Amino acid sequence: MKIAVLGTGAAGTTIASKLIELGHQVMIGSRSNTNEKAIEFVNKFEKNASNGTFEEAANFGEIVFNCIKGEFAIEALQSAGKGIENKIIIDISIPVNTHKEAPLSLIPELCNTNSLGEEIQKKFPNTKVVKTLNTMWSTLMTSPSTLKNGDHTNFICGNDEEAKNKVKSLLLEIGWKEETILDLGDIVGSRGTEAIILLWLRIWGATIGTFSIKVVN
Amino acid sequence: MKIAVLGTGAAGTTIASKLIELGHQVMIGSRSNTNEKAIEFVNKFEKNASNGTFEEAANFGEIVFNCIKGEFAIEALQSAGKGIENKIIIDISIPVNTHKEAPLSLIPELCNTNSLGEEIQKKFPNTKVVKTLNTMWSTLMTSPSTLKNGDHTNFICGNDEEAKNKVKSLLLEIGWKEETILDLGDIVGSRGTEAIILLWLRIWGATIGTFSIKVVN
Repeated sequence: MKIAVLGTGAAGTTIASKLIELGHQVMIGSRSNTNEKAIEFVNKFEKNASNGTFEEAANFGEIVFNCIKGEFAIEALQSAGKGIENKIIIDISIPVNTHKEAPLSLIPELCNTNSLGEEIQKKFPNTKVVKTLNTMWSTLMTSPSTLKNGDHTNFICGNDEEAKNKVKSLLLEIGWKEETILDLGDIVGSRGTEAIILLWLRIWGATIGTFSIKVVN
Repeated sequence: MKIAVLGTGAAGTTIASKLIELGHQVMIGSRSNTNEKAIEFVNKFEKNASNGTFEEAANFGEIVFNCIKGEFAIEALQSAGKGIENKIIIDISIPVNTHKEAPLSLIPELCNTNSLGEEIQKKFPNTKVVKTLNTMWSTLMTSPSTLKNGDHTNFICGNDEEAKNKVKSLLLEIGWKEETILDLGDIVGSRGTEAIILLWLRIWGATIGTFSIKVVN
């Protein structure tokens, strides 16, 4: 499949690498198509990797991963233009408030009674936003089995059932097991999964090594 | 030990019952000492159970459980007066915004950059607030082993190490295992554990039966 990955940070490159490894064609999107990080990334692969602007990547991809930092996500998707229309946006971004001192908090307008996932869905009503992979270390996103043989939970939510099913298929391909993917319903579920960052950082401070969260029932 | 349990809801009576069962003397506190729910509760026990006003209960207890609904917690503790001074307050309350329509959200001033746990600590600086037991079904608070033999996580946080250690001892007595109690550091950790409610309700909607969250590492 042709997939756009917007963002050149740890999450974006981790996901792009995995998708290329699985045989997908990936275009990394960034502000400019001369982005050094993107070019450096692309050069590591013999085939199936390319880079472009947000707009070029969005036009290329059948599915678009939003791996942009939360505060810039809406802007990046706006600059992707019509390329994202009618497409699935897999949103793994967290709306961290970088203008506020530690301890880390969320952008006030995008938490509690709203979320980045919902905001993207509202701002781009012709897309199908699916929130997932946003509650774990980036290494675990694409290699869940490296922790406890994959026995931890990946949440998913979104308004469109068909879109969620497509994303679930992709998650299975990536290495997630059916029974560890928990569907939380519509995109409002993002409020819960994005807010986990507040707990996540505390767990990170209290434990050693990679960890994740599992729903036990 | 003499323990005050403020609040006559499911959480309060569940905890009070367990403490009485363990041989502690418990006074249930409510707005008035003629509170019907409190009297009905006390009458179920042959000994070690009594009821009184918030102030009477706080004066009685060496440790005070705050099991008041989040929006009324500060007010209830204020009416407890000097009785709570220098005592450990085990805060299990969640600051749910009851003035906002569904989906459930937190009181805006008590989330993201603040929390009820912190607010209580700020408002009552001579107490030692320990936040715990606030991320699970009330039945699991006092009977953790009924789910997966207790293999799920109970978070704890607070500014005073000695107070946290006392609360941990009480948690062990209640039935929690040492390895399932995760210390998240100071009371600011409440931001994370209180915000879990947003995710918790979604998990509740997506699963069948009792569940809890486990940190896997």
